[in-house]
Amino acid sequence: MEATKTEEKPKINEIYTQIEEMEHEQLVICYDKPTGLKAIIAIHNTVLGPSLGGTRMWHYTNEADAIKDVLRLSRGMTFKASISGLNIGGGKAVLIGKPSLKSEAYLRRFGRFIESLGGRYTTAEDMNTHTADMEYIAMETRHVTGLPENKGGGGDPSPVTAYGTYLGIKAAAKRAYGNDSLEGKKILIQGAGQVGKHLAKHLSKENAVLMVADIDSEKAAKVAAANKGKVVKADTIHEIPMDIYAPCAMGGQLNDTSIPLLSCDIVAGAANNQLEDEQKHGQMLLDHGILYAPDFLINAGGLMNVYQEYQGNYSKTLALEKAEKIYGTSLEVFNLASSRGISPHEAALQKAVKRIQDIGQLKMSW
Amino acid sequence: MEATKTEEKPKINEIYTQIEEMEHEQLVICYDKPTGLKAIIAIHNTVLGPSLGGTRMWHYTNEADAIKDVLRLSRGMTFKASISGLNIGGGKAVLIGKPSLKSEAYLRRFGRFIESLGGRYTTAEDMNTHTADMEYIAMETRHVTGLPENKGGGGDPSPVTAYGTYLGIKAAAKRAYGNDSLEGKKILIQGAGQVGKHLAKHLSKENAVLMVADIDSEKAAKVAAANKGKVVKADTIHEIPMDIYAPCAMGGQLNDTSIPLLSCDIVAGAANNQLEDEQKHGQMLLDHGILYAPDFLINAGGLMNVYQEYQGNYSKTLALEKAEKIYGTSLEVFNLASSRGISPHEAALQKAVKRIQDIGQLKMSW
Repeated sequence: MEATKTEEKPKINEIYTQIEEMEHEQLVICYDKPTGLKAIIAIHNTVLGPSLGGTRMWHYTNEADAIKDVLRLSRGMTFKASISGLNIGGGKAVLIGKPSLKSEAYLRRFGRFIESLGGRYTTAEDMNTHTADMEYIAMETRHVTGLPENKGGGGDPSPVTAYGTYLGIKAAAKRAYGNDSLEGKKILIQGAGQVGKHLAKHLSKENAVLMVADIDSEKAAKVAAANKGKVVKADTIHEIPMDIYAPCAMGGQLNDTSIPLLSCDIVAGAANNQLEDEQKHGQMLLDHGILYAPDFLINAGGLMNVYQEYQGNYSKTLALEKAEKIYGTSLEVFNLASSRGISPHEAALQKAVKRIQDIGQLKMSW
Repeated sequence: MEATKTEEKPKINEIYTQIEEMEHEQLVICYDKPTGLKAIIAIHNTVLGPSLGGTRMWHYTNEADAIKDVLRLSRGMTFKASISGLNIGGGKAVLIGKPSLKSEAYLRRFGRFIESLGGRYTTAEDMNTHTADMEYIAMETRHVTGLPENKGGGGDPSPVTAYGTYLGIKAAAKRAYGNDSLEGKKILIQGAGQVGKHLAKHLSKENAVLMVADIDSEKAAKVAAANKGKVVKADTIHEIPMDIYAPCAMGGQLNDTSIPLLSCDIVAGAANNQLEDEQKHGQMLLDHGILYAPDFLINAGGLMNVYQEYQGNYSKTLALEKAEKIYGTSLEVFNLASSRGISPHEAALQKAVKRIQDIGQLKMSW
């Protein structure tokens, strides 16, 4: 396994090209005619344990986009689990279609496909899937987390994701400013979804100056109003003067176009795959003097929450305790990056890969 | 499930287009970097039971060809199992690469992927995989058949495939000529592999006049010499005057080009997917007055053999007894085709689909 990866080209009919580059183990394409289910499950790496990762529902315009997405996302889960010290591997699923396609039969059929993998993949919620969906899935498989709290589950993992991200932002502030107070810091939250909403609350309590952007301006307005923030236009966010930029929506926000526009000190948010090209754009942020908190490190709170549930006897307290470690791990990674002269993203990847190698090694003996 | 299918276009990046058309349940793409394993497992339909089908190793020139092949082959297994009255579904696997890539680690890694499907797919040998390979696979999974006889398995299934094909040819002769004697019939066997070799023996015992073709002319010469036959050139076989044409090599031999050249009374062989386009070329043979014995019906002997092993307590006698039913089923299908005014291939498909529908229906109630 390599700690770095080169730019992915959106080629078609090149599943193995992508799989070889990113080193996945398995891609499972599922279909059910009666319900219209089209589900793709990607299992990236199971050295640390069976794979765990959410199910994203999206109206992909073509199959290649769905495959590319699930491959990238599942790979991210491997490193997220590893750097968080969890004993699970990386996996993810995508459902192709609009959320209106969901039905009891559709979700239960998906559950049966998950069950057929015998535990190599456990699911949870992600974009456009919710605790109620997990309940249907759970009718057909034990390999599901993110169930409602009144059903013995951990509930929606977003608040824990937001809490961990908040601590990652504080660690980045500590590194960049010498102390972790966010008072008066101009912070732009891009994405007013579940995570963005909860993150805004934490930041607002610290008297940060909040800006909120979302392609759905009503959503942005609601979150801004609740947290003494203001709404900014979703299409010009990168040029806005700010101290901290927190991407909490779709991935790929850090790229050749956006990075030169940024005037912030810190990029630290909850979105997955924020760097369009991990190596190139991680380095570019470093060269621009911007401190980047690796996404898969600071957004791991949600995974920690479902991991707690996965282990049985869910406890929110234990999940939050795990998420609190994100602060210390972030500082370690920033130090490691400086001492090696590499970007924090690169340093986090190296740390994650090393754990997988070390644990894989020890598992070789009986 | 539809009994017919339209022509498959070799499009790229259209896995779901193919899967929707043929109604597969699952396609599992597997990769292992250390051994170079690239394995694709297709599960077509599991209404009758978990899927069973061999693993073919082939040096596909591109990924799309491998996917197309495994999708077609696994679909064929569904109908083969159904029309043979077996309680298993249709599945198949392909290994991408030259046979020299095989090693203990490679095969055992593949075995672990099979194990990870928890029994939804059981493998066996096919082109370029052998009993010794199955032994390595069996070190990692219980879901493997085709083990050597001295290891409790059913051994190489080819002789039973050949025996069933021989009986299918006899049934076709009975239908076309009024009696099933093959004495003096000019029969061309295309493909001098394991099945072709054993088929030649059966036909030779009946004093058929054998012609043998193979792209490997030495192989053809060997089989011809052992069975009082003569070798014919592999590239001009369709024009040769003959009574019975028995394709026993790669699929797609019956197409727009070859059918008008054929002067035989019967086409009946062991190759899978002989009709390039099932509906069109099945009908074309009918229009040319050629009796076609559906491939998936008469080549089911090998599947019957591994099915016997799959059930436990392998007995060659019972496997051969099952294969003997191919004679009667073939006659039934020829009758059904006449009475419905359709091709025998279409009739066999309808019979196979009906059994799946009926059994699926009865399984609905608890």
